[in-house]
This record gives sequence, C-alpha cells and structure tokens, in this order.
Amino acid sequence: MTTTQDSTTHDLYPTRSVPETRVFDRQGPVVYGSAEDGPMDAELLKHFDDKGYLVIDQIITKDELAELQAELKRLAENADVKADDRTVVEPKSNEVRSIFEVHKTNEIIKKIANDPRLVRRAEQILGSQVYIHQSRINYKPGFAGKEFSWHSDFESWHAEDGLPEPRALSISILLTDNYSFNGPLMIMPGSHKKYISVPGATPENNYKQSLVMQGAGTPSEETLTEFADTYGIDVLTGKAGDAIIFDSNCMHASNSNVTPFSRSNVFLVYNSVENAAVEPYAAPGRRPEFIASTDFTPAGS
Amino acid sequence: MTTTQDSTTHDLYPTRSVPETRVFDRQGPVVYGSAEDGPMDAELLKHFDDKGYLVIDQIITKDELAELQAELKRLAENADVKADDRTVVEPKSNEVRSIFEVHKTNEIIKKIANDPRLVRRAEQILGSQVYIHQSRINYKPGFAGKEFSWHSDFESWHAEDGLPEPRALSISILLTDNYSFNGPLMIMPGSHKKYISVPGATPENNYKQSLVMQGAGTPSEETLTEFADTYGIDVLTGKAGDAIIFDSNCMHASNSNVTPFSRSNVFLVYNSVENAAVEPYAAPGRRPEFIASTDFTPAGS
Repeated sequence: MTTTQDSTTHDLYPTRSVPETRVFDRQGPVVYGSAEDGPMDAELLKHFDDKGYLVIDQIITKDELAELQAELKRLAENADVKADDRTVVEPKSNEVRSIFEVHKTNEIIKKIANDPRLVRRAEQILGSQVYIHQSRINYKPGFAGKEFSWHSDFESWHAEDGLPEPRALSISILLTDNYSFNGPLMIMPGSHKKYISVPGATPENNYKQSLVMQGAGTPSEETLTEFADTYGIDVLTGKAGDAIIFDSNCMHASNSNVTPFSRSNVFLVYNSVENAAVEPYAAPGRRPEFIASTDFTPAGS
Repeated sequence: MTTTQDSTTHDLYPTRSVPETRVFDRQGPVVYGSAEDGPMDAELLKHFDDKGYLVIDQIITKDELAELQAELKRLAENADVKADDRTVVEPKSNEVRSIFEVHKTNEIIKKIANDPRLVRRAEQILGSQVYIHQSRINYKPGFAGKEFSWHSDFESWHAEDGLPEPRALSISILLTDNYSFNGPLMIMPGSHKKYISVPGATPENNYKQSLVMQGAGTPSEETLTEFADTYGIDVLTGKAGDAIIFDSNCMHASNSNVTPFSRSNVFLVYNSVENAAVEPYAAPGRRPEFIASTDFTPAGS
C-alpha cells in the first residue's frame, strides 16, 4: 500500500539536493497529544517537547527483561541470523551489530513492539495511531563497539524513505545497563526544533554503508560545533529495562566502547499513520522494506 | 648516566617473556609519604592509595591556563613541530595527537613541570625526589579523537624502559574541560594494587605503533572483564586547569571522541630517583630518550 508522492506536494524539509547547508525551524509541533490522551503527564510531555527525549524507568518487568536478553543472545549466536541480509556485522570483529525487522520475524519482539506500554506512549506524543517504520536489535559489544557520528534520523528517513514530516519517534528498550562510558546515546537537547538541510547527493544503495557509518546527510563539523555550543550534549544513561524515547529529529551520536560492558537494546521506530511514507524526497530509490516499512498497519491493533 | 641492570637482580614484575597471563599483588606501597611531607592531607593520600588516582581542582591559575592553551595552539599549527620525530599525528586526519619531551624543548612546559605545585605532590606520594621519565602534550581533537585500550603504564615502562617498580605517577593538567562524553580518562579504581603479567614478546621498535594504539602488554579481554567486574570503572571528568594524578599501575583507557569538544592536556610522568630506569626488562632495546628519559636530574631542583 505504497502511496505515490504527489509532485505538487511542497517539500517542507528539502535536503541533499540543495546547494548549501541551511538551518531552519521545525514546522509543526513536537508533541501532538496532551496528558489526557495517554499514560504520560503534562510535565513529562513538556520535557519531551523541550529536550526531544525522555527516559521511562523500568518499562518492562524483570521477567520480560530476562526473556529479551536470552532471545538476544540466542539470535547473536545463530548462524542463519548472522548470514541474513537483514543482519549487520561489525566490519572488523564480524560480531553482530544489528538485526532488522525483528518486529516481524521474531515473536518475542513483535509482542513487545505492539504492547500498550510502548504504543500508547508513541500515540500520545504523535497524536494519532502509529505504525512501525523500522525495528532492530542493536548490539554494541564490549571492546569492539564503534562510534556513530552526529545525525538526525528524520533527515535520512525524509530523504531516503519518504517520511513527509518529523512526526515519528524512536523507543529504545535498554537490555544492558547504559553507563556514561560504554558508548551511550548522546543527544543535543533542543536540537530537534531545528532542521539542518545538508547538501550532497544520496549515493545508490547508500543504506549498506550508512548502517555501518553515517555518511550522506551528516552535517558539517562547523554546523555541529555551533549546535553543540548552543544546545550542549546530554548523555543518556539508564538501567537495563528502562526505555529511552526520542524525537526523530534529535541531533544524536554515540562514542566507541572500549570497556568490557556491552550495550544492547531493542530499537523501535513509530511513525504517525498520518505521516505515512511516500516516495523518497532525495534518493535514487527506496530503501529495502526491512529498513523502511511500507506496511502502515497500526501497531497494537 | 644509564645504570646497567645487575643480572642477579630479581625481576619483581615479570611480563611478556612469560608463558601465560598471571595476576599477582603489587609489591611495596602505593603512597610512600605522609601528610607531613607535602601539600596533600591524609584523606587525599588515602584516596590515592585506595583508588589509584586523585583530582586537584584548579592547580594552575587562569592566566597560566590561558598561556598554556595558547602555546598548545601555536605548537599544533607549527610545521616544524608537526614534522618532528617526537610528534605523533592521527593516522587518518593528520592532526597532531602528541608532542613528546616538551619539558625539555619548551620553556613554558619546562617551568610548569618543575613547579612546586606538581613536584611537591609527586614527591609526597613517591617519598623521595623525583625526575621526569616522560612528558608530552596530548590533543584529542573533536570529531576525530580515537580510543585507547586498557593498559597499565607501568607494565610498559617496566618491560620497555626498565623502571624496576611502580614507584611512578602521572600528572595530567587539563587544558580543556573533560566531560564524560569527549573521551576522558577511565580508570578501574583499585586495579593499581594488582599487576597483570602479560605473555607476548615485545616487537622491535614497538613504540612507533604503541603510541598510536596499544598492542604488546595489553591484557586479554577475559582478564579485563574480570577486572572491570571487580573494580568497576571511574570516569575522570574535570575543568580546564584541574590536574589528575594517577598511579603508574592503574588499569586505564579512553573512548573515542565524536563530539565537537576537543580534549587536550599536558602530561608529565614523575618517577622516584630511587627507582631510576635500568635496562629494559623485556624488550629488544631501549625506547628513544624522548619517550623514556635517562636524565635522572631531580625535578624542581
């Protein structure tokens, strides 16, 4: 049920096919719902609006955590999974880094991805039913976990997947403790209210490279320095079982992990059904279905 | 005035020319002096004894900080310095990473390296006069700063430079703010009381490679995991102008720095004159004088 983009539609967030970097205000709200619409109170929603992220303590039970951890271990050691096209391995160590589309291929992940604890929160922020645009399990192994440079997810999802607006968010369920020192998520709080339009064409099959190291769509060091000076950097630490919810347009990154403590999570991207993917705005072709879903069936339904 | 090692001397810290990894207790004290012997009180000395490090707030004045920062900038941009054998550049970006022997080649560094604020503290901990075994300026540039894996400095200084015992310490004067997110020093607190004997011969001219990425003398992942589980990891943050003092046998490392905030310091290694370098204990030859000094003239004299 792919929707074809109307060529008369105005692109609110031009990028890549642009002559130079331009920073402009986000169009439309960050938070669409209010405290009456879901489990989160007004204060928490305001925090999300201001900072672009929030942390929910222990969103899953200890038993669910143990089950997910065991499933992760099983998948990382499974030869078929490792050989699958939807699995990304570390270039050097050949260890599993990410497994995509797990909300469809794995019953345990499917269940949690459609659980009201996640879906109701996504709906409350996005003000509508939501569908899963992307899902993955991430492993950042001890000793070998590599860094990921600064980027806005929305910039990629707009250019390469055709999401019209940043009416999407990610929920990361932490499956290991995230310390300041094992390559946690870093966010420039408030950066989600600005959009950075980045010049540079999207290469063919860019996703193969960009899953390993962000390339196209990465802002210049000059722009990132200005952003860091303006917004600062928040380091998002948390315990296994916590969830981090963050806006699709946050400027975020992570450092390497030379510690022995691995860092793993289940990562789910919810997009508003009113913001369903159209044709890519700035890419030679659509990314594969396992990275950018065009199944707009509402989650939790 | 190199001392020749007596072949009858017993090696208290065998490493590299050993059949397997072995962990054993440190021989001798960590702190040789007491509160009466210098500027640090008993509580601070106990902290150093227990953890293997301490942080001194604002050990230099704002004016001295500004002078050192300006000098660092000048040196990093100087073509002669960049081409010098004593300068290490980042493999990819070709930016300056370290400049060695600056306590001899640079008047500003020489002055601070011999300043009583540093020398008296080193003497208080090491219980004797001290000389400078090594000095360097370190740059960890924003966006490009690479990680450094876990190691004990003493293990290298013993094997490759001939320091008989871990009666040495490092003082790092921070020239930029060190946050949790820009690749700060990480230490396993308490690890300095154990010595890890690591198998594997030292390659010829190992220093050329080891300055860029630690190789020989690096403990196994298994041993490091046991250590991290036992001791945990402390992240040493601080403000520009602060000093970090840490024991030569601390297990330490640092992650990469993808943030725009660079991380620079002046790094000075003080060794007890009663622990002066002899012949290397486990290396084909001595490292160059600019990395491992055999000028045992007491600092501050």
